[in-house]
Amino acid sequence: MINFPKPTVEQFFRTYTITNFAVSKDEKRLVFNANLNGKMNLWAMDLPDTYPYLFAHRDESCNFIKFDPENRYVLAGFDKDGDENYQIYGIPSEGGLPEPLITGQASEKYYFGHLSGDGERLYYVTSEENPSFLNTRVRNLKSGTDTLLNSGEGTTTYLAAVSENEEASVYIQMHANTYVIGFVKVGEEKFNLTPDSEQVHVLFEPIFTDNETIYFVTDYDSDDMYLAKFDLKSKAFTKVLAIDGESIQSLKWDKENDAFYLVTIKGVTDVLYRYEIGNDKIEKCALPVDIIEQIDVAESGALYILGRSATIPHNIYHSANGMEWKQLTNNRVLGLNQEDMVEPDIVSYTSFDGMEIEALLFKAKPENDNGHTIFWPHGGPQAAERKMFRSMFQCFLNRGYTIFAPNFRGSTGYGSAFTKLVEQDWGEGPRLDCVAGIEWLFDNEVTDKNKLFLVGGSYGGYMALLLHGRHPDYFKAVVDIFGPSDLFTFVNSVPEHWKPIMERWLGDPERDKERFIKDSPVTYLDGMVKPMLVIQGAKDPRVVKEESDQIVAKLKEKGRDVEYLVLEDEGHGFSKKENEIKVYSMMLAFLEKHQA
Amino acid sequence: MINFPKPTVEQFFRTYTITNFAVSKDEKRLVFNANLNGKMNLWAMDLPDTYPYLFAHRDESCNFIKFDPENRYVLAGFDKDGDENYQIYGIPSEGGLPEPLITGQASEKYYFGHLSGDGERLYYVTSEENPSFLNTRVRNLKSGTDTLLNSGEGTTTYLAAVSENEEASVYIQMHANTYVIGFVKVGEEKFNLTPDSEQVHVLFEPIFTDNETIYFVTDYDSDDMYLAKFDLKSKAFTKVLAIDGESIQSLKWDKENDAFYLVTIKGVTDVLYRYEIGNDKIEKCALPVDIIEQIDVAESGALYILGRSATIPHNIYHSANGMEWKQLTNNRVLGLNQEDMVEPDIVSYTSFDGMEIEALLFKAKPENDNGHTIFWPHGGPQAAERKMFRSMFQCFLNRGYTIFAPNFRGSTGYGSAFTKLVEQDWGEGPRLDCVAGIEWLFDNEVTDKNKLFLVGGSYGGYMALLLHGRHPDYFKAVVDIFGPSDLFTFVNSVPEHWKPIMERWLGDPERDKERFIKDSPVTYLDGMVKPMLVIQGAKDPRVVKEESDQIVAKLKEKGRDVEYLVLEDEGHGFSKKENEIKVYSMMLAFLEKHQA
Repeated sequence: MINFPKPTVEQFFRTYTITNFAVSKDEKRLVFNANLNGKMNLWAMDLPDTYPYLFAHRDESCNFIKFDPENRYVLAGFDKDGDENYQIYGIPSEGGLPEPLITGQASEKYYFGHLSGDGERLYYVTSEENPSFLNTRVRNLKSGTDTLLNSGEGTTTYLAAVSENEEASVYIQMHANTYVIGFVKVGEEKFNLTPDSEQVHVLFEPIFTDNETIYFVTDYDSDDMYLAKFDLKSKAFTKVLAIDGESIQSLKWDKENDAFYLVTIKGVTDVLYRYEIGNDKIEKCALPVDIIEQIDVAESGALYILGRSATIPHNIYHSANGMEWKQLTNNRVLGLNQEDMVEPDIVSYTSFDGMEIEALLFKAKPENDNGHTIFWPHGGPQAAERKMFRSMFQCFLNRGYTIFAPNFRGSTGYGSAFTKLVEQDWGEGPRLDCVAGIEWLFDNEVTDKNKLFLVGGSYGGYMALLLHGRHPDYFKAVVDIFGPSDLFTFVNSVPEHWKPIMERWLGDPERDKERFIKDSPVTYLDGMVKPMLVIQGAKDPRVVKEESDQIVAKLKEKGRDVEYLVLEDEGHGFSKKENEIKVYSMMLAFLEKHQA
Repeated sequence: MINFPKPTVEQFFRTYTITNFAVSKDEKRLVFNANLNGKMNLWAMDLPDTYPYLFAHRDESCNFIKFDPENRYVLAGFDKDGDENYQIYGIPSEGGLPEPLITGQASEKYYFGHLSGDGERLYYVTSEENPSFLNTRVRNLKSGTDTLLNSGEGTTTYLAAVSENEEASVYIQMHANTYVIGFVKVGEEKFNLTPDSEQVHVLFEPIFTDNETIYFVTDYDSDDMYLAKFDLKSKAFTKVLAIDGESIQSLKWDKENDAFYLVTIKGVTDVLYRYEIGNDKIEKCALPVDIIEQIDVAESGALYILGRSATIPHNIYHSANGMEWKQLTNNRVLGLNQEDMVEPDIVSYTSFDGMEIEALLFKAKPENDNGHTIFWPHGGPQAAERKMFRSMFQCFLNRGYTIFAPNFRGSTGYGSAFTKLVEQDWGEGPRLDCVAGIEWLFDNEVTDKNKLFLVGGSYGGYMALLLHGRHPDYFKAVVDIFGPSDLFTFVNSVPEHWKPIMERWLGDPERDKERFIKDSPVTYLDGMVKPMLVIQGAKDPRVVKEESDQIVAKLKEKGRDVEYLVLEDEGHGFSKKENEIKVYSMMLAFLEKHQA
């Protein structure tokens, strides 16, 4: 009747992001953080109605939302233009403008820790007076008194759980992404939750099921994360439940039914289980999405999740039992159905040393295919590219680009040992895995040799720079999004509370000088001869603007073809819709220009 | 627990506007136009789910939405930056970016007229080739042929209804707001729907209930609008139903049950009735809001309305029977409940010549009251201030201003004769009604003599300028929002298709030269000694920017205290959230400054 053109690029930018949510104790209200109106703000729905209304307006990123159990207020953390210096605000129970509650100098951080059952005592973690290791304090919201509970020592220390009687608290100490230990503090006494805190392992998600029992997940003495518990009376550590070949990532307690919900990571997707503690029964749940970003269990035992799949943007779902799900939000790509988008193939290939590397291959649909492929090394690096919706991917695919995203060594989801392989080896093993992936693309005729682009962000931006410098012949052009360009400057510019983890993660610039030189992209300036686009958020606290400034300046000095886009009001990501559109439009125009 | 400040001004700006909606034939989808994401765009909900998703993105105002009965596409009209040159676009059935369908030069207008039952023939009205009187054409969407059906003659002529067999069409001819006649055209034959088209009356909302029966509302031979019908076979006009003291404004046919839904205007509120044609039974319905902006009856007989009340912003409601309503949207003022806002009192006072004038008095709550009153002459002038939510009003009230809004002579809702009293008398009777209203405020001690502000938009802006020029002593300061300042220039600058109605409405600048001089604000420049703020949209097609430019220039020449804000991308209203915030923040700052 009316002939419509194929979906355009702009449509993909009109999807929004939902980053987190909270449900009130009575489940009558759900508040979520989304850029529905162009910038990140809090929206609410009065369940069972799902029509959202603006709940709190601040136009900034939010790192947590917490309802007062008595519904007198809602707490939320906001930063400023992506600087990640989150501070704690109060919002009236009916919504409104966030009021500063636990805040300080713009450079300080205040993280939510715990809220007492009566909503009167707010436990929080702050950089104030202890920028590298962090302090934990409690604010009595009624009396206004504010007390120091724990002063982080030796490494970054977060409060992670408080017992119901508020006599015991669990703290987490981060030595690295793969070395995180936990201890419980009772008065001034401290007890490690695992038998040997010198042994490298991680410990997350501590939950008090009563005042003396702490459940948590750990990979202590294992390559996978499993459920364990610590008994405060006997000081005994017990392994409770492992799931073969899968790592538990999140743990939620269904107090009403004395059960746990466990989310495991299985390569590029998540799995949800329900584990009944009393009768040791485990059951696999259904899931409406491949990736769970957040899961909450209400007092009633009902489940709420925020998740996404490769072709489903962020949405929130509700389930009474973990089997049947109702979609509460309806975030979608403007005018597109799931079948208009691309579900990736899971492929694997053998790397230089015989190691198997899993990768996602998003093939452009034949009617869109432009013959070009984008090689995408993911960020992290201790993270993974998984079956999760990215506007950018689906938009590039629609424009005809095939995308290849390998989970090179160092990625999560393939066991702890695999994840550790990137530590103190940022530029060798992972890079050679990428090179093997590129050769696989050629060998399997996915891509012509002269039709490959390279795009990456954060560690992926670093890898893009490094691959460009060392293997320029592979690529037509390169996009670097806030990637570190020089490991010597990078290691000193990260946030204060990251510094304790840098040693294990990256190494020491003096001791490892040779390796730092070998693995710094800036070492290979001479190789970087292909056209390049560099994108950077001016407020980025993780990879500071100087990392991009210096590489751009040096390349320009040499007369190389380099474009540079700086976003003044963004950090390590693009939270504002109009900025997102600007970035991706520029990237697409850049790729288009260099196709010829 | 946490002490929150009182709601701030910004919160009122965070409410959005819903202007119109449409429901698909199967009632599975509802599409509405709202500035939910900051600019006007189309959003959809897949009923019975109410979570809205972006359906069409264009960032422009939309004047109609129409579903293809076969669900192959959706039609919508968009203008550009408020210029009101609406043109017709097609949108894919699953949403997307609007594609130009019936469009032309930027200065042309294309209005939706009718869509055939099979969705193949689109009837439309256009300024193309007939800018003052308009042409009606039909586009065959399948074959692409486009045929002229009617060429408007003598005055602006719109297609208003087409019979099911598409052999008869009703056209509406506008001679003035109070003189609108209708005729049915069958082939080249035309028949007037009322007995005497020379007699001044109006006729709206024609509906074919079968190929030979046309129902409509008219005030032919009456002071109120009533339901009438015209029989195409006998050419007989019949008065069907009048409701004592109320004027019917909208008429919708419930085909399934052979009934009409009638919305009447009763002073400052609306009333909804259901009228069963067969058994001549009329029944008053319940309503969740005071003012109905749009009402639709689905094939199933279900009702959908868009409405608002003084303390309820625009929302959409559904009812199976007109008695019980379910709210589908949940548009509210950020963080405020209805009780935090002000419901107006309905007052009346006697004007200079003994005529009773009704007015809305919004009293600032005692805890907010700043002692000052804003006198608000409404726009139109053939319109009325009614119990309808305005962010501006509730925001001013929250800041402590009391607001007084009289429905001076010329207003609608008080009978046709009353509405006609402003015709060819823009500046005398209505102005004296305003003056009597001001004296009433003083006499009743609502306001101190030195605590009155004057704010108005459009005709209200004209009245603000005129009252300022002729009665400056009453006011501390004056805000004029796109008000005509000189009737001689105004009469020639209105849109082409308005020109035919200017004679009865305003008069002739040559014949009525003396009156034009007397009633033009610019005549009273010497009186305009109070501080003034003038606000104008650069694209305003109704009151062109020149109207504000000239008065501002003349006042500045005389050294008067005048501020001027021009919005480059707005017309006769503020459709963009950020512009709205800018305008009202500036108005508040202006009033605040001049309180002293």
